[in-house]
Amino acid sequence: MISLEEARTRILAALAPTPAETVALPEAWGRVTARPVAARLTQPPADVSAMDGYAVRAADAVQGAVLRQAGQAPAGHPYAGNVGPGEAVRIFTGGFVPPGADAILLQEDAKADGGRVTATETVRPGRWIRPRGLDFAEGEVLIAEGRRLTARDIGLAAAANHPWITVRRRPRIGILATGDEIALPGEPIPAGGIVSSNAHALAALVRAGGGEPLVLPIAPDDTVAIAEAARAARACDLLVTTGGASVGDHDLVQKALGPEGFALDFWQIAMRPGKPLIWGRLGVTPVLGLPGNPVSALVCGVQFLLPALAVLSGLPGGAPPTARVSAGSALAENDKRFDHLRAALTTDAEGRLVATPFAKQDSSMLATLARAEALILRAPFAPALPAGAVVEAILLADLGI
Amino acid sequence: MISLEEARTRILAALAPTPAETVALPEAWGRVTARPVAARLTQPPADVSAMDGYAVRAADAVQGAVLRQAGQAPAGHPYAGNVGPGEAVRIFTGGFVPPGADAILLQEDAKADGGRVTATETVRPGRWIRPRGLDFAEGEVLIAEGRRLTARDIGLAAAANHPWITVRRRPRIGILATGDEIALPGEPIPAGGIVSSNAHALAALVRAGGGEPLVLPIAPDDTVAIAEAARAARACDLLVTTGGASVGDHDLVQKALGPEGFALDFWQIAMRPGKPLIWGRLGVTPVLGLPGNPVSALVCGVQFLLPALAVLSGLPGGAPPTARVSAGSALAENDKRFDHLRAALTTDAEGRLVATPFAKQDSSMLATLARAEALILRAPFAPALPAGAVVEAILLADLGI
Repeated sequence: MISLEEARTRILAALAPTPAETVALPEAWGRVTARPVAARLTQPPADVSAMDGYAVRAADAVQGAVLRQAGQAPAGHPYAGNVGPGEAVRIFTGGFVPPGADAILLQEDAKADGGRVTATETVRPGRWIRPRGLDFAEGEVLIAEGRRLTARDIGLAAAANHPWITVRRRPRIGILATGDEIALPGEPIPAGGIVSSNAHALAALVRAGGGEPLVLPIAPDDTVAIAEAARAARACDLLVTTGGASVGDHDLVQKALGPEGFALDFWQIAMRPGKPLIWGRLGVTPVLGLPGNPVSALVCGVQFLLPALAVLSGLPGGAPPTARVSAGSALAENDKRFDHLRAALTTDAEGRLVATPFAKQDSSMLATLARAEALILRAPFAPALPAGAVVEAILLADLGI
Repeated sequence: MISLEEARTRILAALAPTPAETVALPEAWGRVTARPVAARLTQPPADVSAMDGYAVRAADAVQGAVLRQAGQAPAGHPYAGNVGPGEAVRIFTGGFVPPGADAILLQEDAKADGGRVTATETVRPGRWIRPRGLDFAEGEVLIAEGRRLTARDIGLAAAANHPWITVRRRPRIGILATGDEIALPGEPIPAGGIVSSNAHALAALVRAGGGEPLVLPIAPDDTVAIAEAARAARACDLLVTTGGASVGDHDLVQKALGPEGFALDFWQIAMRPGKPLIWGRLGVTPVLGLPGNPVSALVCGVQFLLPALAVLSGLPGGAPPTARVSAGSALAENDKRFDHLRAALTTDAEGRLVATPFAKQDSSMLATLARAEALILRAPFAPALPAGAVVEAILLADLGI
């Protein structure tokens, strides 16, 4: 058996980011930049007013002074002239500060009457002016390569005048469920069979990880059918199979893919749920074979497939993010396998997150998995812990899965 | 001025969930259920093996006993007969346990030789059998109404035999940016103008909140143009305007929408950034008028638009989720306005999150906002706090924005 960390490291080391594509700005949200985004202009493009009021010479605008309103400078309509001594120009937030002015008299600090403006407070030089380039300067790199774009980044790229963004192509993930016993929802269920849940759960996980799932037709337990389905996946960045990865007589995935040029690595991983894993390469396509057990498939999806999607997307790969939470009940000593306890989350009186493992941890129970809000991580040979101890947990909602 | 909480409460009270639509299961990820999802079958449908091994009568399978292999029962191919005394049936994970058998002899606890199976360990009755209905029973409600579907829920709904799911229609949010001074990225920029960033940042925020943005053409500062654009938004579940919400001479949104039957509420909200907000109704369409300042627009988006999207989607609405973090530097006493300090996140030696506010908090700075990983929340009149104090913060990555 190899450790979970070693398995993940070996998987991630074999993957590389997808090629770039150019998309329109509104499509770039959630995508990963393949090139840095630099400012194409300076923002603000000139000294601008931060408030509604009057552009003035600070030396003039002392309390009680009466100024002559010479014009106005709303946003988008700069004042054509200079602000001369004793003059004020009506200005609004974002308006360009006209030459000659060096401060903004707030409208609440002024009384306007006909063409006259009386200052009711003294203005300090530079007050309420945002200097040219306060936000960013032309040429400045605003967004690095390899960043997943947030809504704020989209706003920033827009402000920097980018209608197009170059991003990594979404990783295309083929998903192949195998087994004589499975049928898709709504289809006739074979005798002794069950409804297939892994393919579409994994497809949703792939979407959550920013990938594009390609759900292949279910392959029966037959080497010819599996090999044929796998050939259809050669255009994928990664082929994920589910089922057929244990050590029984019915482990056909390995047998089927061998003649297709499959360079195989078969691992027993010291983890629970999810011991057996196939890893290899079919021509140029990496292949990740997950267990058929739905809970094992999902937990392996979190530990291996989401990090793989990150690397394929041009992001750093690594362990899924964890949070430190309080154990809601005592935890038994762990054995040699890295364990993932399905748990509910609550918040204690001090506002700390508390993760309480479910009593039944059977790895076939999808309903329990769906109810889980966290996976408490238990390292191999982790000692018994009392309730209230601090433990690491994967918060499933944070991963969108 | 009204408080942020009161403004949010009043906005949310005026909204109702969108009507339902039926989508194919793979499209249901991230959508909110409009009806509960009940199991259409029992899972597992029969007692099944949890492991690879042999279905046996526990009374027979004592250490050293030699059993006759009578047949096999892989998943999907149930054994047709009964397991009689002294018999063993080869079985694999998920295979139906044949009548007569009451335990599974693990394959690692057995030696098979021709048609003979020798038990090398004694088996306990019921061992490694998953009883019928362990996961769920037909008719059981597995997923409640009003839940945003995770990848795990998709797997569960599939296993429960649902090819279709009834969900809330994605809230359609019209976005209307106004202002003579703004141009879309790549378009000619008017004299004294800047590039519009709010519409597409808000569109990305709408997507992050599960909505469908409809970006309307930019409306110049002209009541006729604004009114016309707003008419185009009547098919929306909510119209968001940006710009034109301050108290200056150029607040045209209110003036433009009045003759269109706009029932107006105009609020000064005790918050920073983002004081002025328009709230009202244009015919049946609720209207949320956000400030034109990009940082204010985004922060108001987090505090008002994301909760509004939740309610429109059929989820409970409320304050955005917060986390308790350590302040990375001393915080000054706050004034009467609820403040949002843009901050970077780090992790301290004990694994706790530390949020350190940026030195410059100018609300026009999009680059700083994009770099922020958290908004530290400072309630009105919050006292000064030393570095290391525990504060509430909104973690922006968790919101996908």
